[in-house]
Amino acid sequence: MKPYDIILKKRDGGKLSKEEIDFFVNGFTKGEIPDYQMSAFLMAIFLKGMDEVETRDITVSMTDSGDKMDLSDIDGIKVDKHSTGGVGDTTTLLIGPIVAAAGLKFAKMSGRGLGHTGGTVDKLEAIEGYRTSLTEKEFKDQVKKIGLAVISSTGDIAPADKKMYALRDVTATVDSIPLIAGSIMSKKLASGSDVILLDVKAGKGAFMKTVEDAKKLAEALVSIGNRAGKKTMAVITDMDQPLNTHIGNALEVKEVFETLSGEHKDSALREISVYLSANLIMMAGLAENLDKAIEIANDMIDSGKAKEKMRELLECQAGSSKSLDDPGLLPKAPVVMPVSLDVDGWIKEIDVLELGITARDLGAGRIKKEDSIDPAVGIVMNKRVGDKVSKGETIAYIHASSEDSAKEAIERLKKSLTISETEVEHKPLILGKVE
Amino acid sequence: MKPYDIILKKRDGGKLSKEEIDFFVNGFTKGEIPDYQMSAFLMAIFLKGMDEVETRDITVSMTDSGDKMDLSDIDGIKVDKHSTGGVGDTTTLLIGPIVAAAGLKFAKMSGRGLGHTGGTVDKLEAIEGYRTSLTEKEFKDQVKKIGLAVISSTGDIAPADKKMYALRDVTATVDSIPLIAGSIMSKKLASGSDVILLDVKAGKGAFMKTVEDAKKLAEALVSIGNRAGKKTMAVITDMDQPLNTHIGNALEVKEVFETLSGEHKDSALREISVYLSANLIMMAGLAENLDKAIEIANDMIDSGKAKEKMRELLECQAGSSKSLDDPGLLPKAPVVMPVSLDVDGWIKEIDVLELGITARDLGAGRIKKEDSIDPAVGIVMNKRVGDKVSKGETIAYIHASSEDSAKEAIERLKKSLTISETEVEHKPLILGKVE
Repeated sequence: MKPYDIILKKRDGGKLSKEEIDFFVNGFTKGEIPDYQMSAFLMAIFLKGMDEVETRDITVSMTDSGDKMDLSDIDGIKVDKHSTGGVGDTTTLLIGPIVAAAGLKFAKMSGRGLGHTGGTVDKLEAIEGYRTSLTEKEFKDQVKKIGLAVISSTGDIAPADKKMYALRDVTATVDSIPLIAGSIMSKKLASGSDVILLDVKAGKGAFMKTVEDAKKLAEALVSIGNRAGKKTMAVITDMDQPLNTHIGNALEVKEVFETLSGEHKDSALREISVYLSANLIMMAGLAENLDKAIEIANDMIDSGKAKEKMRELLECQAGSSKSLDDPGLLPKAPVVMPVSLDVDGWIKEIDVLELGITARDLGAGRIKKEDSIDPAVGIVMNKRVGDKVSKGETIAYIHASSEDSAKEAIERLKKSLTISETEVEHKPLILGKVE
Repeated sequence: MKPYDIILKKRDGGKLSKEEIDFFVNGFTKGEIPDYQMSAFLMAIFLKGMDEVETRDITVSMTDSGDKMDLSDIDGIKVDKHSTGGVGDTTTLLIGPIVAAAGLKFAKMSGRGLGHTGGTVDKLEAIEGYRTSLTEKEFKDQVKKIGLAVISSTGDIAPADKKMYALRDVTATVDSIPLIAGSIMSKKLASGSDVILLDVKAGKGAFMKTVEDAKKLAEALVSIGNRAGKKTMAVITDMDQPLNTHIGNALEVKEVFETLSGEHKDSALREISVYLSANLIMMAGLAENLDKAIEIANDMIDSGKAKEKMRELLECQAGSSKSLDDPGLLPKAPVVMPVSLDVDGWIKEIDVLELGITARDLGAGRIKKEDSIDPAVGIVMNKRVGDKVSKGETIAYIHASSEDSAKEAIERLKKSLTISETEVEHKPLILGKVE
């Protein structure tokens, strides 16, 4: 078998065998196939596609390229969720405590943010003392004890994906459904859970700009998961506006803590987190139907059980849960400036990509992997699409490290809004489901 | 400007500007853009194409990446020809002496063979003492003196092409018309001639398998040449069977020498070489029409003037012209075996690719650039498509280094022929013209 012949076959639109895909992925991971052949191969895949079987095969090759987490000695149903990423998307920090309080085992490895999207690990690091690195034993022991652990990845999970992603990132081959599906699912399959729920974002702030594309990706993800013997489902949710009102690492943690304490009852973050948690609860067989599962999930918040689960998580991984009761202890920005408009009307559109980049440029995110971030800064946006705004009303706050950067962010935020003189409808959060 | 954005644009089928192409080709040649970005870019070009203007722009970028031969201080009309390569294609060694004898200046830089195709430099090296490397001064002085020089390239001609070709060769991105056109014409534009004639081969033994594809390539080549201010024309000729009767380096030189001495009057090699020479003579303005130009070219052979020009070439570059008068002095294989069939009929098809590979495997060619070759070995094929063959008649000779390799070649040669019981028409040699 020769790398050249495999590139040629895909270039001409051929269907690759499992052996050919394995040969290429393994050879590349071991350094036997050079970057320049892989990048030509990736471009050929990008432009010629891969069918369902090829997509599954490349995912399995990538999974098999590294370590796999074995959770079989943990009792109960191990569940995992993954979001394809967006702006102000902190559902993991609510779903974990909710489903663990409901009796599931939530053993979660998360990533860092890049570009306009945030990452759970960065958010957790806004909590003083939080250890995102645990050994495999510590991680599993904690899941056994409290049903919940959230860490950055441990061991050498899917090294093929790491190497391939580094190339895709610089050769314009990221936005390919089989390659995205392979990247996400190789890590999910290696993470050892029985049940996988995928939150596929659709909209201007997501990798998939349209519901149609998001549905295609969701179908690929679910097909891979189910064929690998995992109970897998995907929900398509809106990313045409930020999910949280809070954007920025400490700010997002604050919103989560307040939600667990009973605030923000009607927030989009709570609605989506409860819906996703309910789907996990139902998939795990703890409720007969979705309505019952939603009831359970809501009850976990309202009864304070989810908050207590978060307390256990913080005590295990951060050594203290003080900030849960007093979110004022979280990192605070020196400058907080209100934002108001000089017109009356309704919010018709929010340029969520621009808002994400504005938060990043305030210091909340990274352009390159090596960049450091400022946990305190960000944006609190009190309005959503469809909300009425009045002249002079405070619609948002900028949390910044300096007055200059705050002022610049205010202008960018204002420009990111489209205001209508006539009433605008609120948009649905949940756009579809693939199972 | 960023390499990523240029890859992305081409990936999505966009049209690249001259600045973008220059940036990418220059950055790559200087080593600032890595191989893995170039190979993704090449695959995107392969699959999305380039229009006429982009193809011209990439050619000019590649030309400008290195040295250019300045022939302006040589009097007269400097002409150049290039063949896209095939099996038994020795026209350069006839055209050079014909057009130089007719008064043109033929300053030719040639290449080596690879795969099933031969290269002029390898053929010349079958002549004892022939120096294929001259300094630029020696090269130009010789052209001034005798109107004729044939060397391997001198100076750093189109280094971008060298580097790009090395990558295309291992990433399945060779057979792309804009990339082939850029590769050929960047070297032609750098070679300094006023008039360029391209012999684009079509058929099973050529890179372009169909006349249609050959025509597309020919159009791209002619458009680039004309827009760069060179008088350019392309002829499409047949490569569904070998052009020469002789295949193999010394054997091909032998056929050329014999043709110059008046033998092989009706050979395909002579017909095509005269036709191509006549086109150069007409393009240079030395004849009013093609018929007159053909008359001149034929007269150069029949009068012995072309042979005398070859003698001058050999005396300049080989130090002796003995082998011209006595081709028996050229390298000879120790084993020569006749080939005959056990049926009567007409030759319907010759698998020219298989024949080229058979000659290569006898030792006449290379698989890799580093391989050494045996000048003596090869095939003499006395029959062409449409010729009658009789049972037991010698239709070919194998020239080999051992009896075993000769026997294997005989079997392969026999298998490469399709024999018809009914009469088969001879095929035309000249299939089209693009000017």
